[in-house]
Amino acid sequence: MPKNAFYAQSGGVTAVINASACGVIETARRYPDKIGKVYAGRNGIIGALLEELIDTSMESDATIAALRHTPSGAFGSCRYKLKGLEQSKAEYDRLMEVFRAHDIGYFFYNGGGDSADTCHKVSQLSERMNFPIQAIHVPKTVDNDLPITDNCPGFGSVAKYIAVSTREASFDVASMAKTSTKIFVVEVMGRHAGWIAAAGGLASSPDTEIPIVILFPEVPFDEARFLALVQEKVAAYGYCTVVVSEGVRNAEGKFLAEAGGKDAFGHAQLGGVGPVIASLIKERLGHKYHWAVADYLQRAARHLASRSDVEQAYAVGKAAVEFAVAGHNAVMPSVVRLSDAPYRWEVGMAPLSEVANVEKKMPSEFITPDGFGITEACRRYLQPLILGEDYPPYENGMPLYVRLANVAVPKKLPVFHMK
Amino acid sequence: MPKNAFYAQSGGVTAVINASACGVIETARRYPDKIGKVYAGRNGIIGALLEELIDTSMESDATIAALRHTPSGAFGSCRYKLKGLEQSKAEYDRLMEVFRAHDIGYFFYNGGGDSADTCHKVSQLSERMNFPIQAIHVPKTVDNDLPITDNCPGFGSVAKYIAVSTREASFDVASMAKTSTKIFVVEVMGRHAGWIAAAGGLASSPDTEIPIVILFPEVPFDEARFLALVQEKVAAYGYCTVVVSEGVRNAEGKFLAEAGGKDAFGHAQLGGVGPVIASLIKERLGHKYHWAVADYLQRAARHLASRSDVEQAYAVGKAAVEFAVAGHNAVMPSVVRLSDAPYRWEVGMAPLSEVANVEKKMPSEFITPDGFGITEACRRYLQPLILGEDYPPYENGMPLYVRLANVAVPKKLPVFHMK
Repeated sequence: MPKNAFYAQSGGVTAVINASACGVIETARRYPDKIGKVYAGRNGIIGALLEELIDTSMESDATIAALRHTPSGAFGSCRYKLKGLEQSKAEYDRLMEVFRAHDIGYFFYNGGGDSADTCHKVSQLSERMNFPIQAIHVPKTVDNDLPITDNCPGFGSVAKYIAVSTREASFDVASMAKTSTKIFVVEVMGRHAGWIAAAGGLASSPDTEIPIVILFPEVPFDEARFLALVQEKVAAYGYCTVVVSEGVRNAEGKFLAEAGGKDAFGHAQLGGVGPVIASLIKERLGHKYHWAVADYLQRAARHLASRSDVEQAYAVGKAAVEFAVAGHNAVMPSVVRLSDAPYRWEVGMAPLSEVANVEKKMPSEFITPDGFGITEACRRYLQPLILGEDYPPYENGMPLYVRLANVAVPKKLPVFHMK
Repeated sequence: MPKNAFYAQSGGVTAVINASACGVIETARRYPDKIGKVYAGRNGIIGALLEELIDTSMESDATIAALRHTPSGAFGSCRYKLKGLEQSKAEYDRLMEVFRAHDIGYFFYNGGGDSADTCHKVSQLSERMNFPIQAIHVPKTVDNDLPITDNCPGFGSVAKYIAVSTREASFDVASMAKTSTKIFVVEVMGRHAGWIAAAGGLASSPDTEIPIVILFPEVPFDEARFLALVQEKVAAYGYCTVVVSEGVRNAEGKFLAEAGGKDAFGHAQLGGVGPVIASLIKERLGHKYHWAVADYLQRAARHLASRSDVEQAYAVGKAAVEFAVAGHNAVMPSVVRLSDAPYRWEVGMAPLSEVANVEKKMPSEFITPDGFGITEACRRYLQPLILGEDYPPYENGMPLYVRLANVAVPKKLPVFHMK
């Protein structure tokens, strides 16, 4: 009897993490002699700890195929990080108990940096605890901050969404600038790394020039230089668009979003950094503004997914299963770029020991010397990641996103109490 | 020699106002014996007052065709309302002077309620001042608040964007709800009328149920009942999505967005009502939240336009020219609904005297008795307006939106000083 597989989604979900799930499940179904059933964790690793497993074999091929165009995490995700084997022995013991009870020999964990760390620890069960498990990490993060892989599935679609939305809103403000709004500020995700903010720079291209000022978390906020640049853009173009990363900080390292005042309940400023920047411009330069905070809209926007991104998300899911079937453990499929234009890539294999707990920030050569824009090198890097469209099917004007039955696997073990 | 035409865009722009421009210009080009050139006002009616006219005959057919898929106002818009003929005699005199100098006999004004009023006043020049002009209003407003017409071009695309985005973000929060975010709040446009907020209700459908609470500007905010409903949804579904109109007010008629505290500069709360509502839920119910403010992203989102909306925007532009050619004055093409399902509509003709200065709010039978949702009648009304997709062409992963040369018509008159 072939071993069963466990698959779980972890951390913030994306527009394409279900495409990776689709890649894992469809590929596992092609190896019935090697892999039994794919059990998904309900709400990530918590599903394994609580023995809340979902039997994906109860879903039809058509339903699993529809995961490819469905955003969010179909099995539920979680924010939960396992500590080391020594500190959290009870949890690892429980995982092994659950894996043993359900004959699980493959562990596929679909997430970002923290999840890679968890996956790495699970992979060590085989060596350190002599427990037969192969753990493969499936990369996913809109933050694009995993090392080794050229880019992270999930990022390309957010990048495309921010690039397109910024272009569209910039066209809008350009229309209004004569008598009304001259400044448009859009706040984007990226607490530590400015990859998503950088994608806003793609809104402007040689054939469609747009005055854009980008605020990166990597660059301490310099108010005077920022305002001078905005004013320069308004003078030259009549308007200016500002793309601000939620993680931008002042010279003292404090988040700008927290540098504001108090809300109605006496809490620190509710608004993100977007309204803070917009208000600053109004205060100092007098321009009328509008601001938007994209938040979940950006990472859930499957309707505008990048085809590159969808293909890679599927490919890393598929490769994870192929790696497992080939006997690998403690690895992660990565995206290897072969050329920028035409864009060519292939799937590589990265050792998890080199992935876990390493955060890839924007290289300094991707940010213009003034700190407010992206360089040509950055553009060459980002451009392929937003290539192509991959529209979901629609019915009655709405995208047809699938919801799974998520049938529970009968429990075999006593209740486990999480700390 | 046939008379020339003047066309201008007014007020907040939309994803499809350029499709109306396309309809006007392409149709005018089919009547060379009746209409000479189409001159566009640079930045709306201001372009007429300042004699800043754009010669659209300098644009190729292909360029004009591309307006159909380009968001924003290609000629620039303005927020400027003409007063009555008596109060603003100098301005009307100037308009007639400019029209006379450039042999303009047709006036096409593309805007919402205020613009309909301006257009109506211009139409009266023929009767009251014996000036030979035919003024036709081309309806446009994301607010969907014009009377007589079944719906307003521009609204359907925003409705689709909000419905789709709300569905996508709801899928996201559903994935995260077990250990993290349980509440997602999205703030949408609509200062006076809740049409756009209502569209958020379409995110939930019989085959894809989503717990959504809507806050309409038509319904005074009842904090206790709102919080009880949110709590009920979280208990039943594990999460809840809130769609809040920017215009929601408390029982005293004060905007909730302004009921907050002070920002870093001592101003009233910068954030919109979205973060206020999110924070209230956190404060009273303790749930983790995320919030988004769509702002210009929603009305500029041509990438997700409704095909119904694009077709109607084009059709009203086309009909405006046909009305003019047929000798009409002081009218507006309207959308007449013939049936809900299958959706059938035709263009009608509304007298401007009945359009100007009338604001259509949500009828009470479109809002559920509890004040937090949409009724089946509302759903039947909204559903056809988001039907169909109409994607722009893409190149290198970005939509190909056109920018016009906007060649100026040589001025013939002395400078006019606007007040």
